[in-house]
Amino acid sequence: MRYELYYWPCIQGRGEFVRLALEDAGADYVDVARRPARAGSGVPAVMRWLNGDKNGDKVACPPFAPPYLRVHGGRQLIAQTANILLFLGPRLGLVPKAEGSRLWAHQLQLTIADWVAEVHDAHHPIGGALYYEEQKREARRRAANFTAVRLPKYLGYFEQLIARNPGWKGGLVGRATSYVDLSMFQMIAGLRHAFPRAMARLESKHPGLIALHAKVSQRPRIAVYLASRRRIAFNQSGIFRHYPELDA
Amino acid sequence: MRYELYYWPCIQGRGEFVRLALEDAGADYVDVARRPARAGSGVPAVMRWLNGDKNGDKVACPPFAPPYLRVHGGRQLIAQTANILLFLGPRLGLVPKAEGSRLWAHQLQLTIADWVAEVHDAHHPIGGALYYEEQKREARRRAANFTAVRLPKYLGYFEQLIARNPGWKGGLVGRATSYVDLSMFQMIAGLRHAFPRAMARLESKHPGLIALHAKVSQRPRIAVYLASRRRIAFNQSGIFRHYPELDA
Repeated sequence: MRYELYYWPCIQGRGEFVRLALEDAGADYVDVARRPARAGSGVPAVMRWLNGDKNGDKVACPPFAPPYLRVHGGRQLIAQTANILLFLGPRLGLVPKAEGSRLWAHQLQLTIADWVAEVHDAHHPIGGALYYEEQKREARRRAANFTAVRLPKYLGYFEQLIARNPGWKGGLVGRATSYVDLSMFQMIAGLRHAFPRAMARLESKHPGLIALHAKVSQRPRIAVYLASRRRIAFNQSGIFRHYPELDA
Repeated sequence: MRYELYYWPCIQGRGEFVRLALEDAGADYVDVARRPARAGSGVPAVMRWLNGDKNGDKVACPPFAPPYLRVHGGRQLIAQTANILLFLGPRLGLVPKAEGSRLWAHQLQLTIADWVAEVHDAHHPIGGALYYEEQKREARRRAANFTAVRLPKYLGYFEQLIARNPGWKGGLVGRATSYVDLSMFQMIAGLRHAFPRAMARLESKHPGLIALHAKVSQRPRIAVYLASRRRIAFNQSGIFRHYPELDA
């Protein structure tokens, strides 16, 4: 099965959680917006489905925002990062089979999604359509609250889950690496990039998550991916941004 | 099947999206925290599962936050509002059967969840653990951005979905009322309460959503519920709060 991922081509962003799952599974996929626009791909292809109502396309299920996924040749566009992973998980062998385990994995992915939104809002507390420079003062306050209160809360929650997992002590769900583990790798990597000082203070209390990050980074296909040009570097347009003034 | 809903007893909050589905289906459920604490219920019951690690309970799947649901006698606690509805939808007959339709309904519910978070952050842009009065200045800026930019974007998105729905023109998903329609009722009701001036400006452009709200409110079990004491009134502790200064 061939998958088409529609997401912004210059950032990791929310699309990266999907890319990591596709890469780890060795799935056949196209990162549509990273192909030349003249071949019907590129950013215009992302915008075309988003604005289906404006150019006459009959899209019954238009996404509100990227990322979204299409099975090649299929008619449905599946959006919302956690929903895409809910769909892909069983197909890529990245989640246990039982319904209860799938709901649990999805529940954790949704909690990660909430966390991601809070990381974003740490530098954009007033509005996503405004520049960071237009909300620097508010960002300083929100980021201080994030690193002091919210970041330890999320890290502590997920850390205890590794210890409690009845399947094994190496990951968050079941007995083998799941898409939730891949997403947790991305969280730790991103938080280290964005908040190096806060993370330096917190890492020793969360050895399970740090070990999970290291283990995922060494998975053969992930290691190849991270060293490839397909892995976009963290930058100041993505979700995980390093502003020293927000990491006091 | 009997369900136990764990959520704060004095607000509608995120739990209300679950309550509406249970009520509309005439499900057998207990709103645990609204029963007396001395009977093993009340807020302590909510906190007990949340803090399972602190008092020796062996909860393999502890929730990060309420609401969460338990099937009476079951061991799994299902958290994250949209995840609860993903679980309940087929069991309550509030979503079509095909996998594609369920993913689509869930995708919309997740978009509503994002919207709810933005409504919340309009009055709490710095941190949920701080009082509104401690972030009034920032709230004024964020709420202005919300009512000018984000609110029309969300309303416009969902309005076109009603017109595009190939199943019928009365609701968002498939051919019959779904849990997404019940949630949209709650969004319109809450937005009218919190931002009456902004909504007065916007409603005429979104006749489909306004008609959907009216239709849901007249569903027999929903009408009974809304008139009952089980329906908590909007108040200044919930998500939808009316601060005139945030609705300029």
